[in-house]
Amino acid sequence: MAYVPSSELLARLANGDTRAAGRLITRAESGAAEARETLAQVYHRAGRSHIVGITGVPGSGKSTLVGKVAQLLRDRGEKVGIVAVDPSSPYSGGAILGDRIRMTELATDPGIFIRSMATRGATGGMARAALDACDILDVAGYGTIIIETVGVGQDEVEIARASDTTVVVSAPGLGDEIQAIKAGVLEIADIHVVSKCDRDDANRTLMDLKQMLTLGALTRPKADWPTPVIGVSAFTGEGVTDLLDAIARHWQLSKSSDLGRLRRRRVAEFRLQKTAETVLLERFHRGAEHVRPDLAAALADRTSDPYTMARQLVISALRKEYSNELA
Amino acid sequence: MAYVPSSELLARLANGDTRAAGRLITRAESGAAEARETLAQVYHRAGRSHIVGITGVPGSGKSTLVGKVAQLLRDRGEKVGIVAVDPSSPYSGGAILGDRIRMTELATDPGIFIRSMATRGATGGMARAALDACDILDVAGYGTIIIETVGVGQDEVEIARASDTTVVVSAPGLGDEIQAIKAGVLEIADIHVVSKCDRDDANRTLMDLKQMLTLGALTRPKADWPTPVIGVSAFTGEGVTDLLDAIARHWQLSKSSDLGRLRRRRVAEFRLQKTAETVLLERFHRGAEHVRPDLAAALADRTSDPYTMARQLVISALRKEYSNELA
Repeated sequence: MAYVPSSELLARLANGDTRAAGRLITRAESGAAEARETLAQVYHRAGRSHIVGITGVPGSGKSTLVGKVAQLLRDRGEKVGIVAVDPSSPYSGGAILGDRIRMTELATDPGIFIRSMATRGATGGMARAALDACDILDVAGYGTIIIETVGVGQDEVEIARASDTTVVVSAPGLGDEIQAIKAGVLEIADIHVVSKCDRDDANRTLMDLKQMLTLGALTRPKADWPTPVIGVSAFTGEGVTDLLDAIARHWQLSKSSDLGRLRRRRVAEFRLQKTAETVLLERFHRGAEHVRPDLAAALADRTSDPYTMARQLVISALRKEYSNELA
Repeated sequence: MAYVPSSELLARLANGDTRAAGRLITRAESGAAEARETLAQVYHRAGRSHIVGITGVPGSGKSTLVGKVAQLLRDRGEKVGIVAVDPSSPYSGGAILGDRIRMTELATDPGIFIRSMATRGATGGMARAALDACDILDVAGYGTIIIETVGVGQDEVEIARASDTTVVVSAPGLGDEIQAIKAGVLEIADIHVVSKCDRDDANRTLMDLKQMLTLGALTRPKADWPTPVIGVSAFTGEGVTDLLDAIARHWQLSKSSDLGRLRRRRVAEFRLQKTAETVLLERFHRGAEHVRPDLAAALADRTSDPYTMARQLVISALRKEYSNELA
């Protein structure tokens, strides 16, 4: 496959070329410098699509739900993009497909674009890349873009929040340990979903969530938007239409009120911070690369300490990388 | 409670004062500048304890196992420290206790020190703070320090690896989704544990792991150390002694071979990088604070793009923070 300049991929993207979308996302993910100017242009052109964050812990059934939502939107004639952010193997560097496999029936439909993203490096680059991917799909004409994350880990939760509408999926009957981990995740919901509501114990989870909301224990008050709690069964199909209605209502309210403007402002600030961290850490690592092993050796035998060595490493890396720009 | 300077806490720490240990860990976690000089001294004095990383996905039973291991070591007269790294609520900033509650019986024993740590900010500070906490407990005289992490998310996996001996816990019968997420985690194990092996389906998981190891599908070959796979039941107590023996054997081998030296070198390099990232990002955020909202506004209405704004933000923050040191 011949190398196509990113600028040319952008031209193809605007014509809805899904392969161009895929290749641009790959470049966004790898942080390729050549693609940055193009990604900047993508950003200028994007901003029309409805970005829906869907999150939930492993086992909550969120991936199945994402599939159902996408299918239903598709049946209505919409184009749907799915950006799935998964923890990655530290060795393979690739996303783990896992439940993505269940989506194969969707994957053959050109009106649905599915992309799994890895969490590369610990540089916060995942958030930046995932949001770039949403913009790419936005420009490619996908009206709704679902960004799916595992609801464990601060970055994953923040990414799900960096959307126009955030859906948090809870499953009935998961262990206490798993529910506890979700506590921080529950608070970001614009819409709560209880999955597997064909099960007997689902009602308990529905009531628990409603009660937490009533007591004000969960979400900070959002003017004009009483957070809905919706039971859904991927098995019987119950509730999926209700969820879609709630998503559409939230989007309407966002567009016609300050809610959306403030939300996009917050997302922009998050995105700026993540992009700046990526850019800074990337150059820091490049500048630090050759110095680090020697400093680490002094650390391993405890003749120095991490703080002294870290300061030294930072200064020599910044001096190497930024001396011209800061002069 | 009067403020005690960190240097004085260090003096108390060396006498095994657990309250001093707790307060120093709090300062390490908050990144208090006053504590850094003390933490540097802690680093110089530490390095004797055996750091055991234990990780597994939510529901794998790893916390229960940590409790059993700690109890058995305690019965043998050892002092045991436990540093548990949990995903935190984005709002409360606190660690979620969840299964830690089950450990209350241990918590009343002064020979066992348990500390839950939150994941504050997305600055990689969690890894730095967790490793500082291990050093603090090392100096306080805890011979074995267990660092427990949730096996989801790259940082959590890396922290479990930053130990002398890494134990990965798998449970039988967890869903496909959860098992898939674990794939990257399985590869870091020095010792595999299958929990809940009183259950019928545990044998299948044991066989699966053994086969993956035999086929070389899982771990890179480690000279002199065939990775054991141990079935454990917290319920019947089966296997816990075997696990302790394996942990001790791995530690002996580490001390008497290059394995341990190379491992500590790798951990030092990881730690240097994480500490440097913390130090750098901290000053970057301080320098960026006042500029960021204005730049974000231009981003929200898409009149600029994240990359251009990020470069601008980085340069003005570095100029503000580092101009003297880089001159």
